[in-house]
Amino acid sequence: MKNLLSNYVGLEEIKNMDTKELTFLAEDIRKFIIDSVSRTGGHLASNLGVVELTIAIHRVFDSGKDRIIWDVGHQSYVHKILTGRKDKFHTLRQYKGLSGFPKRKESSHDAFDTGHSSTSISAGLGYALSRDIKKEDYDVVCVIGDGAMTAGMAFEALNHAGDTKTDLIVILNDNEMSISENVGGLSKYLDKIRTTPTYFKMKEDVESILNSIPAIGKRMFKTAEKAKDSLKYFLLPGMFFEDLGFKYLGPVDGHNINEIIDALERAKSVKGPVLIHAVTKKGKGYKPAEQYPDKFHGASSFDVETGLSLSKETNLTYSDVLGNTLVDLAKKDDKILAITAAMPSGTGLDDFKEKFTNRFFDVGIAEQHGVTLAAGFAANGMKPFFAVYSTFLQRAYDQILHDVCIQNLPVTFAIDRAGLVGNDGETHHGAFDLSYLSHIPNMTIIAPKDKNEFIKMIKFASEFNGPIAIRYAKGNCYDLSLVKNDDLPIEYGKGELLNQGRDIAMIATGKMVEQGYKVLERLKAKGKNITLVNARFIKPLDEELILKISKSHSIIMTMEDNAKIGGLGSLVNSLLMRNGYKGEVINIGLPDEFIEHGSVEELFKEHGMDIDSITNLVMDKFNI
Amino acid sequence: MKNLLSNYVGLEEIKNMDTKELTFLAEDIRKFIIDSVSRTGGHLASNLGVVELTIAIHRVFDSGKDRIIWDVGHQSYVHKILTGRKDKFHTLRQYKGLSGFPKRKESSHDAFDTGHSSTSISAGLGYALSRDIKKEDYDVVCVIGDGAMTAGMAFEALNHAGDTKTDLIVILNDNEMSISENVGGLSKYLDKIRTTPTYFKMKEDVESILNSIPAIGKRMFKTAEKAKDSLKYFLLPGMFFEDLGFKYLGPVDGHNINEIIDALERAKSVKGPVLIHAVTKKGKGYKPAEQYPDKFHGASSFDVETGLSLSKETNLTYSDVLGNTLVDLAKKDDKILAITAAMPSGTGLDDFKEKFTNRFFDVGIAEQHGVTLAAGFAANGMKPFFAVYSTFLQRAYDQILHDVCIQNLPVTFAIDRAGLVGNDGETHHGAFDLSYLSHIPNMTIIAPKDKNEFIKMIKFASEFNGPIAIRYAKGNCYDLSLVKNDDLPIEYGKGELLNQGRDIAMIATGKMVEQGYKVLERLKAKGKNITLVNARFIKPLDEELILKISKSHSIIMTMEDNAKIGGLGSLVNSLLMRNGYKGEVINIGLPDEFIEHGSVEELFKEHGMDIDSITNLVMDKFNI
Repeated sequence: MKNLLSNYVGLEEIKNMDTKELTFLAEDIRKFIIDSVSRTGGHLASNLGVVELTIAIHRVFDSGKDRIIWDVGHQSYVHKILTGRKDKFHTLRQYKGLSGFPKRKESSHDAFDTGHSSTSISAGLGYALSRDIKKEDYDVVCVIGDGAMTAGMAFEALNHAGDTKTDLIVILNDNEMSISENVGGLSKYLDKIRTTPTYFKMKEDVESILNSIPAIGKRMFKTAEKAKDSLKYFLLPGMFFEDLGFKYLGPVDGHNINEIIDALERAKSVKGPVLIHAVTKKGKGYKPAEQYPDKFHGASSFDVETGLSLSKETNLTYSDVLGNTLVDLAKKDDKILAITAAMPSGTGLDDFKEKFTNRFFDVGIAEQHGVTLAAGFAANGMKPFFAVYSTFLQRAYDQILHDVCIQNLPVTFAIDRAGLVGNDGETHHGAFDLSYLSHIPNMTIIAPKDKNEFIKMIKFASEFNGPIAIRYAKGNCYDLSLVKNDDLPIEYGKGELLNQGRDIAMIATGKMVEQGYKVLERLKAKGKNITLVNARFIKPLDEELILKISKSHSIIMTMEDNAKIGGLGSLVNSLLMRNGYKGEVINIGLPDEFIEHGSVEELFKEHGMDIDSITNLVMDKFNI
Repeated sequence: MKNLLSNYVGLEEIKNMDTKELTFLAEDIRKFIIDSVSRTGGHLASNLGVVELTIAIHRVFDSGKDRIIWDVGHQSYVHKILTGRKDKFHTLRQYKGLSGFPKRKESSHDAFDTGHSSTSISAGLGYALSRDIKKEDYDVVCVIGDGAMTAGMAFEALNHAGDTKTDLIVILNDNEMSISENVGGLSKYLDKIRTTPTYFKMKEDVESILNSIPAIGKRMFKTAEKAKDSLKYFLLPGMFFEDLGFKYLGPVDGHNINEIIDALERAKSVKGPVLIHAVTKKGKGYKPAEQYPDKFHGASSFDVETGLSLSKETNLTYSDVLGNTLVDLAKKDDKILAITAAMPSGTGLDDFKEKFTNRFFDVGIAEQHGVTLAAGFAANGMKPFFAVYSTFLQRAYDQILHDVCIQNLPVTFAIDRAGLVGNDGETHHGAFDLSYLSHIPNMTIIAPKDKNEFIKMIKFASEFNGPIAIRYAKGNCYDLSLVKNDDLPIEYGKGELLNQGRDIAMIATGKMVEQGYKVLERLKAKGKNITLVNARFIKPLDEELILKISKSHSIIMTMEDNAKIGGLGSLVNSLLMRNGYKGEVINIGLPDEFIEHGSVEELFKEHGMDIDSITNLVMDKFNI
């Protein structure tokens, strides 16, 4: 058969294909995605899992008129390919190329931008209820994974939606996984449904039988309603969702196009909120991804034949260092424990998880609960480390403030992926943690310049008696010890003077110390020797050191990979202002805008944070 | 019978009382609370609802060894009275007096500080799991309302706890209310249980019958497990919780001491997580509070005989103005809608709710969902207003950033109770909204100085095409039009010069403009005429106006009722620093600490934000 995808021009075709053709199209899409993502990198396993589901959705619904919302959104590749973005697909996640997530500004087929988990039902309900107010007529479809369903806000939305009479279709894409294996009571419940297959085809029969027996029910059990519920619970799965007010359809085989189309057609005809439970397999159709779905969750480029990564990087990442160091510390201190919100691998905790089974807690995609759980641990004398990506910790801002900091509890936030993360783009950059943490009373914030300092900081945090955040960048550790051996111990509120120069002082934090060091080297080659300070503590600032430097330098530059508003620069500005500094201050950092996707190098360059730009800026200042 | 409370010395007594005495004690406590709260004000209805429940908890558990965690915590009065704080109870919520919420620093009987909703199960699970790690032996009891159960983080915690085997007792205090009537699918589900009373006493019988019939079940239905589940669902309520991994006991009558004690004893003996469903009545035993539980949620002082408030305040509050103005606007613009998270009265939306039933949405205690729901509405062409207290909006920080601001959607955040709220204290002050919003790209932030400006700002927001936050204080509107008639229209990014003076310029926002105006009057009486600017826009700042003023003033004072870090002052500092201002800058605002409870006046004074302190500060500057 001809390649259906290469000739594919638009959604109309899907409406006219027969089952066989749709199945062939699915295979063509699989091949196309595997081939393309093997070169660009990207989210492979989740997209291979929803090929049939996505085709079925576009068969039954009219995207554009009907609104389709992809929860998290990394599984929207098939949707992108089918809705006019096939030819740009090779630019996926590249600078100025297609986003790896749905974007309203990219296509009218993307109804709602996503990136973080568990937002789709809320957004979809907003679409549905406004449709009702405006008396319009179309369907709203939310596709959400079983992992995303464990987050509180999905429950909040189910609870509200179930109470309305609005037409809303939620597709639970149940692949038994978050990025890693799924956890929690709900997951076990779904497992029970899956392993007792009562396919939805029998559902209608059961319903009609039930509707015919209320009289018997009444006689037998006094309340017909309860008898019916009971029989339904026995004969039909999904009462958990029915209890919340949803009509439950399923489970259906998410790789059987006909079965899904059938379920979607029925859902379309149902009045009120309905949940379709589709069972899928992550990585479906590509053996290496089926076998290691977590490795192929967000993959870098790989060899299609073997599935082996083409990435040559073997250096330690900051995540590795966190994991290794925590294992070392936990051996000596049985109060240390680790919490992750569905990211054991990503945060480097795989080894810890294996070695300290009773001190490792994966709470699911539940950052709010994770933080307050940590507070409970700390209140009871433990030393919890919550390892979490900067962007996802945003969801627990209130819990950090209200449950940890008001009580001044010794919880360590190991904030991974702080700063720019690259190809995942605006929903994933860790651009704001300094800003959302620095104004919280009792919070201490530190950031390492390199591996050795990070190890010392983790130890410092484990002995610190209050809330403390360590932020560190995605990817490989910098190792400044190769060029310079600074081995000052970490001391509360003390920064580190890395180079004493004159006229201009750079006060940098985290990854920007690396940039600063490289700028310094360049400048030295040009005969200029400026001062470089590693802030170490963003909160509290080393006021003594900074003020001392302010007295002997006419230009102070702050450098951070965080939003300038509310970050290091803003704290330094206020300190200098309070102390009557009359020199010039230059804040280098992220501008007041959302930063798109691209490599960190490209993005640094765009925002004047690369070594060339900073060096030129400093040389300009010398020339004036 | 003698008054059992007046002679009460400690928890030991409760262990030795018989049922009759416990019942009398309950009545004594009720009278004591009604009498005391009628004078101090406080949370009445919720505490009257948990008198028997609290006594029973202290009868069965050993507080101190066993850990009791009160969700939200405003229902902890009975607990406070029974655990050594009876004699200080008259200082409740007063400056330097007892807190209205549990506080670890107040008593070792308060295991965990609460204030915001739905944190108790997470914290309790942290206690329980660390007990297991340390191989200690005691019970952990969380008391959570059915309102709090609708928040996502409670679900996250149930989902995690249900998956553990740890001993954790959750008491669902089901009074069918949040502050107002409860909403959502879960609420309807609980209602179904309540109205089909299958009291838990029969539960054990059912369980033992079930255990004896798996063989029959197997033959009849193939899978014994499913048959048992089905029978349980028919015979027993609470399968929703059982599905998540909890043992369900209930419903029990929460005002029948024996029944609760019985349930608690059984829960104690159960292995693994257990949920007791106790049905109580808010305001129980005090007619006016039973009748109007929402009015007696957080009451000011009242007449015990009549239940009428002793507060003489009849002026309009900012909440009233929001409600009235939105009603006016919604009449003309059918795209305007209002969302609340369980606070229709508190946010002034009662009238809106009644007049525009299809454009009013109470989402329950679910700020996260509320914000993303608003984003969905806005993406579909509506103009949603989310009216919410500053402190509770903290919980939706990620949704504001990720779901509203990245897409630059026209959602209005009507942020009530911004600044200090007074007697509710550190968990409730709106001290951080400027800090957690100002660094978010695409966000506009405004604040009115008085009623008229607020009305104009609400209209401005309804016509604004992007995310916008209006923050305003608790309580009565200031009305500057009485003394000065400024009627400039609201113009994007433009501040308002209220008085042109010299030497010193005050740049103030919101409630602090009122303070500034009063300082100005005082200074004028002393022959000093300084400049007063109403910032209007915190983001974007009116850079033109501020820089113009900076050129002609040697001292610039910023004034805000927000944390100084990340707030107006910090933004002005950075602006002036960038522009080489060489004068002095003084930032007035909240210090980097959590602010305790007390009247706003007392707290302003403590932190140098009252009119006397500011006037003195300015006079000092003139004298130098």
